[in-house]
Amino acid sequence: MSKTSIGWVGTGIMGRPMVHNLLRAGYPVTAYARRREQLEPLIEAGAQTATSLSEISAGTDVSIVMVADTPDMLEVITADGGLMDGAPSGHTIIDMSTVSPTRTRYVSEQLQARRIAMLDAPVSGGEVGAIEGTLSIMVGGPEEVFREMRPIFDVLGGQVRHIGESGAGQVAKACNQLLVAQTMAAVAEAYLLAQASGVSRERVREALLGGFAYSRILEVHGERMLNDDYQPGFKAELHYKDLHIVAQEARIMGLKLPGSEAVLDLMEELVNQGDGELDSAALAKIVGQRAKAP
Amino acid sequence: MSKTSIGWVGTGIMGRPMVHNLLRAGYPVTAYARRREQLEPLIEAGAQTATSLSEISAGTDVSIVMVADTPDMLEVITADGGLMDGAPSGHTIIDMSTVSPTRTRYVSEQLQARRIAMLDAPVSGGEVGAIEGTLSIMVGGPEEVFREMRPIFDVLGGQVRHIGESGAGQVAKACNQLLVAQTMAAVAEAYLLAQASGVSRERVREALLGGFAYSRILEVHGERMLNDDYQPGFKAELHYKDLHIVAQEARIMGLKLPGSEAVLDLMEELVNQGDGELDSAALAKIVGQRAKAP
Repeated sequence: MSKTSIGWVGTGIMGRPMVHNLLRAGYPVTAYARRREQLEPLIEAGAQTATSLSEISAGTDVSIVMVADTPDMLEVITADGGLMDGAPSGHTIIDMSTVSPTRTRYVSEQLQARRIAMLDAPVSGGEVGAIEGTLSIMVGGPEEVFREMRPIFDVLGGQVRHIGESGAGQVAKACNQLLVAQTMAAVAEAYLLAQASGVSRERVREALLGGFAYSRILEVHGERMLNDDYQPGFKAELHYKDLHIVAQEARIMGLKLPGSEAVLDLMEELVNQGDGELDSAALAKIVGQRAKAP
Repeated sequence: MSKTSIGWVGTGIMGRPMVHNLLRAGYPVTAYARRREQLEPLIEAGAQTATSLSEISAGTDVSIVMVADTPDMLEVITADGGLMDGAPSGHTIIDMSTVSPTRTRYVSEQLQARRIAMLDAPVSGGEVGAIEGTLSIMVGGPEEVFREMRPIFDVLGGQVRHIGESGAGQVAKACNQLLVAQTMAAVAEAYLLAQASGVSRERVREALLGGFAYSRILEVHGERMLNDDYQPGFKAELHYKDLHIVAQEARIMGLKLPGSEAVLDLMEELVNQGDGELDSAALAKIVGQRAKAP
């Protein structure tokens, strides 16, 4: 039985290693990028290439999208000459970008009308997870399509979960991002209190790791903060974008989420002061600046 | 070699099982309580009793205090006829209550002038931890006194750490409490977003537990929130008191900690609406009320 053929759009820091993993697992992959030079290492690894998006979806069973933001996703899938234009009935589009849940449902409905299936499948775990194939993948869309695509997800991720209908994967990712950001801000406040009190942040962290205050954020990002080590990791400008999605969804749902708004504001200041390329744990810098402001 | 004799003040929900553990470990314990009936089960278990605080400190090597709040601690130790009055030079007072770090340093200095040693040693882990002797104990004060008292801490706790000089244990506890409260509020916001989006909170929680959003709070209190199960656990009114300590210390240090202020405000509303006896994870109720307020 020949393997599902895959079309791939989005060969950035995340997409590239994911394509390598699919090729290694024996999937035929056809990749597309606006800038041809991005494809060179993938061609060497055995990927085919296409010169247009519609060619990608016309010539493969499944198109996978891994782009930066909602407008990119919309353009890649729904613009003239996009994936939707080329895709035959029965094709599946998997969007692994982190984008708006509401827009995801909207695109999914358009595709459904043309008998094209769509899954939203945003990931967490960063570049390391992409390289090692250990991403956490949160999937929304029809369960039977999820089951069909499961072998592909298992190549790319360590923990793969079907969350619910279309958009549910994006909602889970939004929840993840608001929780991570708020926990980072709280860790930053704890460190400030310790430091101002003349108490070792390291020892406080160690003590707290052993109790109910334990979080992966305190463990991993809490250590980055101790060392002012903000090499990304996950860039602040992307986390900022994700917190915008949270704020937008909350507004659509008529929800006030003040904690999420507060960390959006912190991340915005971080990006505005030119630190968008740092790891998003650098929001500790803003928490510190504001804590000591007169 | 005979064991260190221990005086104990504070036989509430935490103190009582802690005394039982010390008795079981073979320590002679003399307990004091204003209400005599609180002592009955301890007498049955082998405790001696005293009729005044100064008698406690006069007749034992180490006095341990486990009371509810800063004013109680101050009264027990420094008021006329309190522990300080009875304690001979060379006595040690261990305060395991959760109280103000600044007040702790103040009391410690008074005691030091009389050659009475003091450790602050607040705990986390709740009633279950007290019963099972698995509390996390965060200790401030002179390291040599900490080492001397270590065998006692090891009976009461599972993880025992010396954080720093006098007050450092209380600072660590304050950091713990602000971090726990903010994480609970963030989990509540994530759940609200999921629910309003028609997505299963259970599945979002499961997915998030596998990634960077993992926290003990998401695991333990996140489950309470799903089930609206707010049996304490750790009472909201006590967490409210602890967040007050955080706010007070921040003010003393000239720090603005808006995340901590926000959860103090949530916890205050929870207590004011008559829910102070619930587990503090019930602040999710307030997050929900405010999220949906017109």
